Amino acid sequence: MNLKNDLLLRAAKGQDTERVPVWMMRQAGRILPEYREVRAKAGSFIKLATTPELAAEVTLQPVDILGVDAAIIFSDILVVPEAMGLPYEMIEAKGPFFPKTVKSAKDIENLKISDPETDLAYVLDAIDIVKKELNGRVPLIGFAGAPFTIFCYMIEGKGSKTFSEAKKMLYSNPKLAHTLLQKITDSTIAYLKAQIKHGADLVQIFDSWAGVLSPDQYRKFSLPYIAQICDAIEENPVTVFAKGAFFARKDIGKLSCDVVGLDWNMDIKESRKLIPNKTLQGNLDPCVLYASFKEIEKQTKKMLKSFGGQRYIANLGHGVYPDTDPGKVKCFIDTVKSF
Amino acid sequence: MNLKNDLLLRAAKGQDTERVPVWMMRQAGRILPEYREVRAKAGSFIKLATTPELAAEVTLQPVDILGVDAAIIFSDILVVPEAMGLPYEMIEAKGPFFPKTVKSAKDIENLKISDPETDLAYVLDAIDIVKKELNGRVPLIGFAGAPFTIFCYMIEGKGSKTFSEAKKMLYSNPKLAHTLLQKITDSTIAYLKAQIKHGADLVQIFDSWAGVLSPDQYRKFSLPYIAQICDAIEENPVTVFAKGAFFARKDIGKLSCDVVGLDWNMDIKESRKLIPNKTLQGNLDPCVLYASFKEIEKQTKKMLKSFGGQRYIANLGHGVYPDTDPGKVKCFIDTVKSF
Repeated sequence: MNLKNDLLLRAAKGQDTERVPVWMMRQAGRILPEYREVRAKAGSFIKLATTPELAAEVTLQPVDILGVDAAIIFSDILVVPEAMGLPYEMIEAKGPFFPKTVKSAKDIENLKISDPETDLAYVLDAIDIVKKELNGRVPLIGFAGAPFTIFCYMIEGKGSKTFSEAKKMLYSNPKLAHTLLQKITDSTIAYLKAQIKHGADLVQIFDSWAGVLSPDQYRKFSLPYIAQICDAIEENPVTVFAKGAFFARKDIGKLSCDVVGLDWNMDIKESRKLIPNKTLQGNLDPCVLYASFKEIEKQTKKMLKSFGGQRYIANLGHGVYPDTDPGKVKCFIDTVKSF
Repeated sequence: MNLKNDLLLRAAKGQDTERVPVWMMRQAGRILPEYREVRAKAGSFIKLATTPELAAEVTLQPVDILGVDAAIIFSDILVVPEAMGLPYEMIEAKGPFFPKTVKSAKDIENLKISDPETDLAYVLDAIDIVKKELNGRVPLIGFAGAPFTIFCYMIEGKGSKTFSEAKKMLYSNPKLAHTLLQKITDSTIAYLKAQIKHGADLVQIFDSWAGVLSPDQYRKFSLPYIAQICDAIEENPVTVFAKGAFFARKDIGKLSCDVVGLDWNMDIKESRKLIPNKTLQGNLDPCVLYASFKEIEKQTKKMLKSFGGQRYIANLGHGVYPDTDPGKVKCFIDTVKSF
């Protein structure tokens, strides 16, 4: 089906666009009262994420209510470890928790390379519904965590400032770490390909914990697996967002991906120089949306000027924070659209 | 008193040294069983930090047991907000918690600029004891949090991955934020000067949460206050360690400080170029100390070669992690000392 608004897809492919496309990480979920209603109805985050009709409903809300240029499927990066055999819980106000973590070679052997059509059918079903409901209005973004970030959770079992438990395996048993990373990578490639088959117009890889690694370790334990994914996904554009990996921008710029996401620590002009041949995405500090409407407009315009009008997708430099006023979010989106 | 081992002090001042001096952030506390004994005797972290005899005892342990080239006073950066009128608790396995946080102009008015000789006498008393016990063996390092990092805790009230509550004030009420930052800065300058008066041979400013700010915000809300401190401390060398502020290295290199600390994300050669006229300190990934002895030696030597032998103080790129084997720590220290 032809898209009515294909701005984001064209920008991702490096084609010229009449205006800068805009969406926001975590736009499906978190900020809208309409989302909170569906979330309450579902009873839990995981119930919401695993019920295709409800996941589809919250995926569509930002398109209808905020007017963003793309939908992103409502899901979680941790569905992949779950599908591999390591279930998780989402603890209110605390975050994800894995009752069982990976500790040994035996634990890794016991994990399977997940088959998305069976193990992650609920996400693919949600994509089917969303595509039908969108009816070509805007593109749909699929996503997965980068293997290293998924690895972090599978070893550490929960969020952490340092992920020192996960990093411990990189230093104490690198071979074991690589075995697990490869298994995650294989699962992720199959998963992203299935998302595309079901209608995802582009896919984003989130390396949320990239910043805990040294440049050397990043080159050894994260980049090669992201590279495998980028090489395997030839169907549709791929975005790589490695939060905190300022030191790897040049390397990421050489991957066979189409878009590189920037966080708000990364200087825009420097990033354009380091990543000359890709579309960039980002990177407003999510906290700017706590400022006045006037200041949000000012900061957004400043960012737009700095990126320039082409090969660019406007976004925040991180997921939108839960306590952000939807009116302020709308101000950001409208400022981009009318620039 | 003349120091018997003044390697670290000479390196800090940019003078040549026969070998690279070494110490570790968080060396006083955390890793040693001998520390845990004293900690258990004290009953709580705060009791330990506020009892000069006990704080002095754990300050000296790494000098005696690990053979580091400097002692660092056992304390916490949060003693400054406490002294300003905002007490905190240390919650086991969770971290600091402020029952009352700063929310309004009135709250800031109610805070005082602390007088170290009365409000922080317990730290100065500990310094007095340590200096006597050290008897000139090695220099003593004093420290304080950077105003922005202290601000983060005073607003947020606890640790956070994003410090979005604290950052909210920067965007929504910058004037109020500056008022509080100035009050913290004034308290910090008086505190560091008192530490030096009591015998601290050099002082380090920890901007632990520098990395949550965008480059623009860092230049507005953190750097000017660190600059004030550096300008005010003329007595002894000053080290600035701004974790995560890779984007500010050039600016930090222009401060009137003597040493710049690097975290493990920061490339050594690039940092030397960005900060050409200062002594550098750092920056081994603390997780390297989870590796084998052979690997620790290898990684440590690689780091030493990359920094070069002069204008350099060996350290980790972050505080040593609590579950690190003291034998591995000793391996790191001995590798530096015998290089």
